[in-house]
Amino acid sequence: MKYNTTDQKIKVGIIGATGYAGVELLRLLLSHSYVEIAALSSVSYEGKSISEVYPNLKEICDDVLTNEEEVLKKSDVVFASLPHGLSEPFAKKCVEQGKIFIDLGADFRLYDEKDYNEWYNLPYKEKELHEQAVYCIPELHRPLLKDKKIIGNPGCYPTSISLGLAPLFVNNLAVEDRIIIDSKSGVSGSGRSLSQMTHYPDCNEAFAPYKIAVHRHTPEIEQNLSGLAKRKVTITFVPHLLPVNRGILSTMYVDLKENNNIDELLSLYKEFYKNEKFVRVLDKGAIANIKNVRLSNYCEVSLHKDERTNRLIVVSAIDNMVKGAAGQAIQNMNIVCSVPEDTAISMITPSV
Amino acid sequence: MKYNTTDQKIKVGIIGATGYAGVELLRLLLSHSYVEIAALSSVSYEGKSISEVYPNLKEICDDVLTNEEEVLKKSDVVFASLPHGLSEPFAKKCVEQGKIFIDLGADFRLYDEKDYNEWYNLPYKEKELHEQAVYCIPELHRPLLKDKKIIGNPGCYPTSISLGLAPLFVNNLAVEDRIIIDSKSGVSGSGRSLSQMTHYPDCNEAFAPYKIAVHRHTPEIEQNLSGLAKRKVTITFVPHLLPVNRGILSTMYVDLKENNNIDELLSLYKEFYKNEKFVRVLDKGAIANIKNVRLSNYCEVSLHKDERTNRLIVVSAIDNMVKGAAGQAIQNMNIVCSVPEDTAISMITPSV
Amino acid sequence: MKYNTTDQKIKVGIIGATGYAGVELLRLLLSHSYVEIAALSSVSYEGKSISEVYPNLKEICDDVLTNEEEVLKKSDVVFASLPHGLSEPFAKKCVEQGKIFIDLGADFRLYDEKDYNEWYNLPYKEKELHEQAVYCIPELHRPLLKDKKIIGNPGCYPTSISLGLAPLFVNNLAVEDRIIIDSKSGVSGSGRSLSQMTHYPDCNEAFAPYKIAVHRHTPEIEQNLSGLAKRKVTITFVPHLLPVNRGILSTMYVDLKENNNIDELLSLYKEFYKNEKFVRVLDKGAIANIKNVRLSNYCEVSLHKDERTNRLIVVSAIDNMVKGAAGQAIQNMNIVCSVPEDTAISMITPSV
Amino acid sequence: MKYNTTDQKIKVGIIGATGYAGVELLRLLLSHSYVEIAALSSVSYEGKSISEVYPNLKEICDDVLTNEEEVLKKSDVVFASLPHGLSEPFAKKCVEQGKIFIDLGADFRLYDEKDYNEWYNLPYKEKELHEQAVYCIPELHRPLLKDKKIIGNPGCYPTSISLGLAPLFVNNLAVEDRIIIDSKSGVSGSGRSLSQMTHYPDCNEAFAPYKIAVHRHTPEIEQNLSGLAKRKVTITFVPHLLPVNRGILSTMYVDLKENNNIDELLSLYKEFYKNEKFVRVLDKGAIANIKNVRLSNYCEVSLHKDERTNRLIVVSAIDNMVKGAAGQAIQNMNIVCSVPEDTAISMITPSV
Repeated sequence: MKYNTTDQKIKVGIIGATGYAGVELLRLLLSHSYVEIAALSSVSYEGKSISEVYPNLKEICDDVLTNEEEVLKKSDVVFASLPHGLSEPFAKKCVEQGKIFIDLGADFRLYDEKDYNEWYNLPYKEKELHEQAVYCIPELHRPLLKDKKIIGNPGCYPTSISLGLAPLFVNNLAVEDRIIIDSKSGVSGSGRSLSQMTHYPDCNEAFAPYKIAVHRHTPEIEQNLSGLAKRKVTITFVPHLLPVNRGILSTMYVDLKENNNIDELLSLYKEFYKNEKFVRVLDKGAIANIKNVRLSNYCEVSLHKDERTNRLIVVSAIDNMVKGAAGQAIQNMNIVCSVPEDTAISMITPSV
Repeated sequence: MKYNTTDQKIKVGIIGATGYAGVELLRLLLSHSYVEIAALSSVSYEGKSISEVYPNLKEICDDVLTNEEEVLKKSDVVFASLPHGLSEPFAKKCVEQGKIFIDLGADFRLYDEKDYNEWYNLPYKEKELHEQAVYCIPELHRPLLKDKKIIGNPGCYPTSISLGLAPLFVNNLAVEDRIIIDSKSGVSGSGRSLSQMTHYPDCNEAFAPYKIAVHRHTPEIEQNLSGLAKRKVTITFVPHLLPVNRGILSTMYVDLKENNNIDELLSLYKEFYKNEKFVRVLDKGAIANIKNVRLSNYCEVSLHKDERTNRLIVVSAIDNMVKGAAGQAIQNMNIVCSVPEDTAISMITPSV
Repeated sequence: MKYNTTDQKIKVGIIGATGYAGVELLRLLLSHSYVEIAALSSVSYEGKSISEVYPNLKEICDDVLTNEEEVLKKSDVVFASLPHGLSEPFAKKCVEQGKIFIDLGADFRLYDEKDYNEWYNLPYKEKELHEQAVYCIPELHRPLLKDKKIIGNPGCYPTSISLGLAPLFVNNLAVEDRIIIDSKSGVSGSGRSLSQMTHYPDCNEAFAPYKIAVHRHTPEIEQNLSGLAKRKVTITFVPHLLPVNRGILSTMYVDLKENNNIDELLSLYKEFYKNEKFVRVLDKGAIANIKNVRLSNYCEVSLHKDERTNRLIVVSAIDNMVKGAAGQAIQNMNIVCSVPEDTAISMITPSV
Repeated sequence: MKYNTTDQKIKVGIIGATGYAGVELLRLLLSHSYVEIAALSSVSYEGKSISEVYPNLKEICDDVLTNEEEVLKKSDVVFASLPHGLSEPFAKKCVEQGKIFIDLGADFRLYDEKDYNEWYNLPYKEKELHEQAVYCIPELHRPLLKDKKIIGNPGCYPTSISLGLAPLFVNNLAVEDRIIIDSKSGVSGSGRSLSQMTHYPDCNEAFAPYKIAVHRHTPEIEQNLSGLAKRKVTITFVPHLLPVNRGILSTMYVDLKENNNIDELLSLYKEFYKNEKFVRVLDKGAIANIKNVRLSNYCEVSLHKDERTNRLIVVSAIDNMVKGAAGQAIQNMNIVCSVPEDTAISMITPSV
């Protein structure tokens, strides 16, 4: 599929448009010069206008929410933002009709069905779909996208972590079974559904980890790192809920195989990402902060050496809703549709 | 001045680029298709890169900060974001050199020098400059901009308030000396300078008014409302510091001269703003919220009747940094430079 | 009832102990030297330990939640924190058994049944109970408590407002139909029940009014002010939701009948409250802030004159959970049980 | 020194009473039944009332701030809350006059002068003072306090970490050189002094680590753990700034020497702390949260096993201002003065 003109727009639809990721996709796509919104679906709000659910969109996008069938019918590219286990039928129909299906959910992220079974307690019903599917963090897997129709868009934590650690594993510098990852995510990562944990008075002025060492993003992270290292990588991963709206910061502790110094490691990182607009390797001494990537598609990475223990500490920061979800999904669409990769995702983080 | 092509860009400079308003201007201008950044000045950080001060701009804008003279020399349009009392000399040079000067500070907002004397304790040194200057909230004063070289960009509170009350005063519906305005502003409105009141632990989980009935935006608000009403309007204005980064919400209490019902008033507002993209009059029952305008140039207005007292309550919300400062300044520049008025300021508020 | 010794403790029970007000009551009562907790009830969590619901209480109070009957049976003093319309049967049983019933809900706050009908859409089923009941902000109505068995504990907004305006109305200084009250409440005021408006990402970095001019605390405020003024007072009352956990700040705009100056008004306020530990009238120039009363039973009041309009602006701040709910309920209990009035409610606001 | 009666109060003074730790000490001591406040000093605010600096104390404590000499003269127990390098002269005078000196700063925490030299770039000028001094987390070092006159009160991070890891090291279960500690602290930990990092708009909705692997609390943590283990322990320690006012949460990653299961480890922890009121070991599945210890002297500890890697994850939470500073200092004073250890520090965390 090739869209090298803005004259004939890509017809795009969103299944699950009223979740936080869905509506963020919509917001970004509304500024996409190669795209027109074909249809938006929502199970809970079908028949209502999207701007009734999200009044910030009033007079900007007042489209009426419809159902999945309409989205499938009207769109060339279908984004789905659904709870796990629901995507296969939609992916199937897209493939049958020559459409592109980009899944922001978890169903097309894991190549090994056993991982999916183990962590999601579900089988792959349509195995051939999964064989056709591709998982893609563009900076790490861009070439794999070619001619693909089903794209498993990466999870938020795995994006921040994989971008932070990739140069180490590609270069075989890290001890594979001594990776500790302590991540902190803003509350939008928990979605729009109500829960006591995300009730304002319970969440504000609070802080704690959750799903300690059992979070479902674990196999995805290990798949990515193992793929880069070409050997098995095992991590300990602990996410925390951070009382901010957006952002993921991952603090990653790596035992180095050799005693690489910080300048050498920084050079290697800068070289690795030198052609990547959306990954910013910070200069020595600077520290990644979610504040500096908010509302942008950037990933900020900083490196720090614990000289006393020969450990490397990698800090990476992304906006969980953009690079960690909707922005990266559009980046994947842009690549697969051959439009400039940064279209509609070049927003600059506000300084305040 | 006419810039109806993107081939020859408008050369724009910012005096005071490292304040919050200055850097927000820069952020928005970097996406302006008719503009190129000519120079940025900063007294405190001259010689440093703007991205050293604001690391969110790293690899996006690494321009080195210079001084005011450079800005004046290299720019066709000069924005200034300075403490009051400092703008006249720069305005003067711009006028002499046929450049446009847009002042985000307070020096060119008040038409009556007596008001400036009284509230700022300073005289107008260059009176003829002030005669040439224009004050402009585009939705209320657009025609006045024609051929002007000095533009006094409105204050944040006055923008939210004037847009909220304009239809009432234009139509002579409100009792002129019974206007109570209770405004709440996010902390970015206090600027980047450190103070105990804006120290995180003192400001977080706190809330209070400040400068009660003595805030310097008072005469600007009265100038605007009196101008619309064509008779003297006197207000009571109390601002509060809200523990959020951005946004101003004004709750305005108006005694109506007659017993207009809410539907009639809503129609009148919708009619008044029907051609204005950036003012959104909400439907009956909906309530303006800073959340719905964050990071956008929109002003949201809602009307509510206290049937028991025949009082009208008008609620308006803007982003203090965009419609209340940098966004409106660009809107004014766009008009005066004859480029599409919404260029670079059509950002959509994120839903989360 | 007289408890002038700590040897024989007052047996206290709480109906609705797992709401925010109920558990705050419990927290304060656990430090009450004249009290022992007899029983706690909860409809949703009966059979669970209170510390399972609120883990901050683990090892401090692990009492098992029971039902209302147990509370009634075991307690000398029964606090109820229930949705409106549910309190009468419990109040009735208390009266029959010679117990004291203190209602933190709305059912015993309004003396005039018509007000209750109009604002809550319910009748008084047991009219004689309401004749026996008393409504009490101690600083304003202390003598009325004598020998009473049913106490309607004041609402949070009415407490902050009545304490802020009482001296004006007692002294007949304010124009009775020109009172504008703009209040802002922390999110705990909305309770523990989940709602979209109090979902963290929707509530954080947001701000808006709600129930504009139709909030159910309106008749209670008017009842209080009218009672003090001995003539009918009509107010316009607009509450806002503030993104903090605790605190209510009310900004009140009053048209003065005469041109009283600020020093005179401050003297009058200081005189009025001179024997009241929990009301702090600030010195000229200081401004009330919810920060300064958090987690305490204090009410802070500051006065400000708008000299240009002869309007008085009164600012009052309380902690909505303490002086606005549980603390004041204990204060009422202390008075009616003849123990020192400040017992268990003398906590000092943390400075940070 | 023995104070087993409330008749003769302990005369207590605070040097540096206007810092956050100093004023928190004051707040707690004001409710201490065995204490009277003798004098408060402040370099910046000498001559002012403490309630002018902290208006939350108005009418509660309006003591005038004096200088260090006055504090030394009038007090039996002197608390100091000063920047490092300033405490020795005050400690010396206290010892000479038979007074007790409790240092909330860093000067008496490290037993090995080399550590102090290395991390603070200063010598011990009065070596014999340091020989007399004791460092004390009561739950770990209580017996050492006996007859001591100089007490080095522990740092906030070391308290949360040492309490979280003590049972492991006492029982020789953890690999000594594979301890990763990822801590997150509320902003009050950075103190009252203004800085860009703690300016509200820069700090709110932001999150990042700081002083990565070079924080000065590192040697104190290693001293504690090595002392418990009776062998050298080396850690990697990374603190983060959390956008909340209070609280420290430490997530600690430990490689176990053997494959202890979680039940066994929990039993061991519960046994270890069975007589300690202020340490709460959570039941299996529960997770420590700063929310549950706010404003209290409790430390909450939870254990979690990463079964895939045989790593133990220990999470501990304290209030940095109470158990991490002022509360623990009072706990130490209570012990050394032979009053009930929990006096004035039994506050219960509010549920909201």
